[in-house]
Amino acid sequence: MSIADLPAPPLQLDAETLEGFIRAAFPELDVSVRVTALAPGHLRLRQPIARDHLRPGDTISGPTLMTLADTAMYLLVLAHIGLEPMAVTSHLSMDFLRRASGEVVLADAALLRLGRRTAVGHVLLRVEGDDAPVAAAQVTYALPPRA
Amino acid sequence: MSIADLPAPPLQLDAETLEGFIRAAFPELDVSVRVTALAPGHLRLRQPIARDHLRPGDTISGPTLMTLADTAMYLLVLAHIGLEPMAVTSHLSMDFLRRASGEVVLADAALLRLGRRTAVGHVLLRVEGDDAPVAAAQVTYALPPRA
Amino acid sequence: MSIADLPAPPLQLDAETLEGFIRAAFPELDVSVRVTALAPGHLRLRQPIARDHLRPGDTISGPTLMTLADTAMYLLVLAHIGLEPMAVTSHLSMDFLRRASGEVVLADAALLRLGRRTAVGHVLLRVEGDDAPVAAAQVTYALPPRA
Amino acid sequence: MSIADLPAPPLQLDAETLEGFIRAAFPELDVSVRVTALAPGHLRLRQPIARDHLRPGDTISGPTLMTLADTAMYLLVLAHIGLEPMAVTSHLSMDFLRRASGEVVLADAALLRLGRRTAVGHVLLRVEGDDAPVAAAQVTYALPPRA
Repeated sequence: MSIADLPAPPLQLDAETLEGFIRAAFPELDVSVRVTALAPGHLRLRQPIARDHLRPGDTISGPTLMTLADTAMYLLVLAHIGLEPMAVTSHLSMDFLRRASGEVVLADAALLRLGRRTAVGHVLLRVEGDDAPVAAAQVTYALPPRA
Repeated sequence: MSIADLPAPPLQLDAETLEGFIRAAFPELDVSVRVTALAPGHLRLRQPIARDHLRPGDTISGPTLMTLADTAMYLLVLAHIGLEPMAVTSHLSMDFLRRASGEVVLADAALLRLGRRTAVGHVLLRVEGDDAPVAAAQVTYALPPRA
Repeated sequence: MSIADLPAPPLQLDAETLEGFIRAAFPELDVSVRVTALAPGHLRLRQPIARDHLRPGDTISGPTLMTLADTAMYLLVLAHIGLEPMAVTSHLSMDFLRRASGEVVLADAALLRLGRRTAVGHVLLRVEGDDAPVAAAQVTYALPPRA
Repeated sequence: MSIADLPAPPLQLDAETLEGFIRAAFPELDVSVRVTALAPGHLRLRQPIARDHLRPGDTISGPTLMTLADTAMYLLVLAHIGLEPMAVTSHLSMDFLRRASGEVVLADAALLRLGRRTAVGHVLLRVEGDDAPVAAAQVTYALPPRA
């Protein structure tokens, strides 16, 4: 049994709606992220790396990876509960596994639990073209009361 | 891309050797755990639940789940580096997802990174007969110098 | 500003009530823990180490430390909200800092936030007689609806 | 016993050296952070909040807080081991405690362990003028071999 095989609730939103929402609601966010896969319980985010994501030695910075994991989990939650800007991160725990270097980072977010008050997910990050993960996160979102 | 598809190094030990080692080295551990699956990068541990694993209401206790996750990751690491009692947990982060109740808990441990000095893995725990996970952990082991 | 100086809500229970409650509600727990300090936002738990808390080399086991951190945070939460067996751990993240060896472990739990639905705290563990911490944890409890 | 009272090794660097180093080595970082306190085992970082740190509703973003915690711990480690750009974050676990809103965020980093290969610390974040913490993190740095 792995995270890829978990049962998941149905989707409420498609990738286009998610991308449109995040661009409207978070104009300060990097507009270059794209939702490149979406299925019940899973979402993939694709982040082209720009100059200001890098540290000396062309290492992709920790904050870039944490932000991407957080955003991937946020969009995965919204995909299942609908547009709800008031969902907020309550916990993020990230292991940095390898030096990250490359032109694109992919974040695969998987839903571990979608409850009434919280959602918990796992996010695996890697550089496009290399299967070895550069970071892994567990993220909890606190959810507002829903109908 | 999910944890189930990660590249992994070859195994050094089989399940019987792991079980024999842990029973000899940790006699105080619950002797009822069994390694029921083992492949490069993955190990499953099966824990029958006894009276002293339970809290009021027949809920499987948090310490039982944390111990099982830690043991599963320990054996997964040993399976890849050989019998090395000096590997020690340096970090364990667990999300408790649902009330756990049942007769057997399964822990699926997956290797995220096996480095020279540390190993990082993910462990998913569920009650036998129910696919919804009851807990998920990220665990880091500090490894002794190796040849 | 440190954890020791945080503002905290008033206590609802004293140490004797907490100890009596935990012995009645969790008879399977080690009955040897004692609440040796209690103040708004802070609680200290004292755990004498017995044979079954040890690993080879007389190292105090990780599960012993995780259980103690979890119990210290549970009692700290109850001290502020009253006897409420339905508070459950939702997250525990522990860093193991040094090999733990000794006859008594002390756990100092501090409240970071007591909200309506969750409580978050920090727990520092050390061996009696040595100031260097052996482990540190952040613990979140999910709280049942309260009046 | 609290984090504020832990024994700590002596400082190797002062605040001015740390600030000069980070501005030279990480030009893409926000240049507005200041080290406003430094003592053995402790460092405070002060971050004035700008427009691009905010989310809708003038909430200080999670990535801003995670970056600040990571930077505070990095500087605290360097203060004790000397200028060493190759120290890298291996784990960051953050609990978001309250909505953060205000003009300045303060991060108080405390050293839990400075080992040969890793350093572990705790960071408490709050908005200037309010003692209630908005976030708390545990951060581990992997250290390069040292003389």
